[in-house]
Amino acid sequence: MSENVKTVLPETEIPRHWYNINADLPEPMAPVLHPGTFEPVGPDDLAPLFPMAVIEQEMSTEREVEIPAPVRDAYRQWRPSPLYRARRLEKALGTPARIYYKYEGVSPAGSHKPNTAIPQAFYNKVEGVKRITTETGAGQWGSSLALAGAMFDLAIEVFMVKVSFNQKPYRRAFMESFGATCIASPSNTTEAGRAVLADNPKATGSLGIAISEAVELAVQRDDTKYALGSVLNHVLLHQTVAGLETMRQLEMVDDYPDKVIGCTGGGSNFAGIAFPFLGERLRGGPSTEFIAVEPASCPTLTKGRFAYDWGDTGHLTPLTKMHTLGSGFMPPGFHAGGLRYHGMAPQISHLTDLGYIHPRAYGQLECFAAGLEFARAEGIIPAPEANHAVKATIDEAIACRESGESKALLFNLCGHGHFDMQAYTDYLAGNLKEEQTSAAEQSMALSGLPSV
Amino acid sequence: MSENVKTVLPETEIPRHWYNINADLPEPMAPVLHPGTFEPVGPDDLAPLFPMAVIEQEMSTEREVEIPAPVRDAYRQWRPSPLYRARRLEKALGTPARIYYKYEGVSPAGSHKPNTAIPQAFYNKVEGVKRITTETGAGQWGSSLALAGAMFDLAIEVFMVKVSFNQKPYRRAFMESFGATCIASPSNTTEAGRAVLADNPKATGSLGIAISEAVELAVQRDDTKYALGSVLNHVLLHQTVAGLETMRQLEMVDDYPDKVIGCTGGGSNFAGIAFPFLGERLRGGPSTEFIAVEPASCPTLTKGRFAYDWGDTGHLTPLTKMHTLGSGFMPPGFHAGGLRYHGMAPQISHLTDLGYIHPRAYGQLECFAAGLEFARAEGIIPAPEANHAVKATIDEAIACRESGESKALLFNLCGHGHFDMQAYTDYLAGNLKEEQTSAAEQSMALSGLPSV
Repeated sequence: MSENVKTVLPETEIPRHWYNINADLPEPMAPVLHPGTFEPVGPDDLAPLFPMAVIEQEMSTEREVEIPAPVRDAYRQWRPSPLYRARRLEKALGTPARIYYKYEGVSPAGSHKPNTAIPQAFYNKVEGVKRITTETGAGQWGSSLALAGAMFDLAIEVFMVKVSFNQKPYRRAFMESFGATCIASPSNTTEAGRAVLADNPKATGSLGIAISEAVELAVQRDDTKYALGSVLNHVLLHQTVAGLETMRQLEMVDDYPDKVIGCTGGGSNFAGIAFPFLGERLRGGPSTEFIAVEPASCPTLTKGRFAYDWGDTGHLTPLTKMHTLGSGFMPPGFHAGGLRYHGMAPQISHLTDLGYIHPRAYGQLECFAAGLEFARAEGIIPAPEANHAVKATIDEAIACRESGESKALLFNLCGHGHFDMQAYTDYLAGNLKEEQTSAAEQSMALSGLPSV
Repeated sequence: MSENVKTVLPETEIPRHWYNINADLPEPMAPVLHPGTFEPVGPDDLAPLFPMAVIEQEMSTEREVEIPAPVRDAYRQWRPSPLYRARRLEKALGTPARIYYKYEGVSPAGSHKPNTAIPQAFYNKVEGVKRITTETGAGQWGSSLALAGAMFDLAIEVFMVKVSFNQKPYRRAFMESFGATCIASPSNTTEAGRAVLADNPKATGSLGIAISEAVELAVQRDDTKYALGSVLNHVLLHQTVAGLETMRQLEMVDDYPDKVIGCTGGGSNFAGIAFPFLGERLRGGPSTEFIAVEPASCPTLTKGRFAYDWGDTGHLTPLTKMHTLGSGFMPPGFHAGGLRYHGMAPQISHLTDLGYIHPRAYGQLECFAAGLEFARAEGIIPAPEANHAVKATIDEAIACRESGESKALLFNLCGHGHFDMQAYTDYLAGNLKEEQTSAAEQSMALSGLPSV
């Protein structure tokens, strides 16, 4: 027992501030544009959707943003989360690399999403909001906002893409267990939903339609706002609590990462682990490498264009400059539902464009194989999304074995796979195949980019 | 943030010994009897099934049994587990009680079962065993032994009751993810299984048949042993790691429990949290109350007889003196699968008979209601088994509110409900009913007790 496996911090060491990378950007980001006028948006344009504290964070360039006491208080349920040294995996791989993983699956929702669901619920509560609407695909985000709603006594209404609503009844039960309402989208609750159903009563829905439904309700009522679980600056800001804790935990074992690795869908878990370290690099610190891992069948950073685009298929949201496959891109049905998004967080896109983040894409079969190798060594079954980070880490550890270098590799194990066992069942039975996206499909979706 | 919510211990504070309550019993236990001769068994009678280190622990009266270094090493993946102060639940109930819960759901299998799966796998490994067979009902135990097998490079073969095998494919996927084999029982793999299938090709199985299959394979081959996940002394011994940690954690917050509460199926999670404190009481310490909570539809401690009985329906196992509903008792299909057992750990039965443990039974509907109340306050969805402990704790906290007393209540939250969401789905949809067992059924099963 001489070698440390798990570094834990007491509650008192939950960070007091989130880290805002906007303070350290070498070049400013491109402005967010109004979808009607294509002119830069101001706070008032966003006020119908978000509480003012969130809008201020979205636009802030302060390096440190205080975490309110009630949010730290709610974080205590599972934070600080453990940082693991993957000694069994290192041994299984025969690598001299030092592999660390931050485990965000210990949260009550099983992923990193409550890190932002809780402050978003808090800020809404403070500003007198009674109800928050949102959309969810696979259900991780909806589950986390449901949990946050229970903590701050807010009504939560989740529009869940109908195909997932039917396929994943346990995610719905999870949300309802916390008192939230979960509605299959398209629904008869909204104009947007009714319009889709009038056109096609059997429509199985999409994230784009679900966003339209959630936004419609939020705009309609003064006591209701809308919340988003990734992509935006304030969401990435909230996730830095994980990276800041990790920094302190690595100090305790006297180490510093040579490479920081995370999977990227909208980008929030990657930003959460990477930005505090990337900020140090931008301020002249160690030249750590940052690797963003995405699915080969939704290759936003590796094959998308860095351009202005809408956040939704219905073109109701503002436009941001980001890596995008086009808002009309329909990702195939691979299992990492949290990575099925046509765009990427503008901050991550910007830093990738500037060369600070190195993107990489993998197919789902090699990711499941890596996830099982990890599980058998470390005891934790990762979420299919997290398997992408696991795969990249194993590849880097094998490269260390071949070169004989002992590098420190850090990745974010952003969630467990307990609600994804159907994916593992399919993989183990040999029933999973590689999902492909043709160049023609990608090119067609990109042809729909706005002329800004 | 002045009030502590979660008490964490560093890895170095994982206990170095398990606590053996046999050292402190006010009266010795009744001997275990051979199923053929009804004479007391010796170590050699058990040698075909268990490694000698386990048999020695089964019979030991040493107060402290050393936890081997490789077991402590494996425990580090999730141990020490957190002790929570349920401040939000206390507030929601308006109770002056101080509610604590030990959370064993942080283990990689999501329950307390790895606490014994890991040492059992270790002792088998040391004695040169290559393969362990076992049975599982709902799958928690099979999952934990699969995990332990991956850690110590042992082949694990799990006979899973066929009806559960078909109903719970995710548990099977969990076991297979760790490299274990999971076989629907009755199977064609064994004589016992083939005999059942010859009689009824559509037989859906029972725990009794699955035990027979697992035992048959273990006895047949020299490189194979059998493992059990509850009931026996050595299993309860291994679970005391949870109670010993809790004792240290309560010291850190300067408190001591007035009441210790756990759910009881075979008895191992209850013993794990209770025995270290009960041992102190037996040695003249504080007069803590110990409450064992069972399902009203399988009321072993509250309505069973304290008598010699077999551990299995097939009458292959030794006889122990325990609270039993009769080895022919078929519990109805309520959702807390881990509590569906006709007998009870002999140590718990003995201490209940001596008046040190107070049993209590609840129906499943009131337990699910309590579980949801807990989840909405504390953020964790408990396993249906654990809901029994939650219900008793809430009742005790309400009693404190009514009497104005500030008692310290401690319960074992032995697992999360991530693999039990169908039960919550049914409950939330109003599709669960109270399962009943008639007095006639109970009386009939008791009529089958052996004449010892």
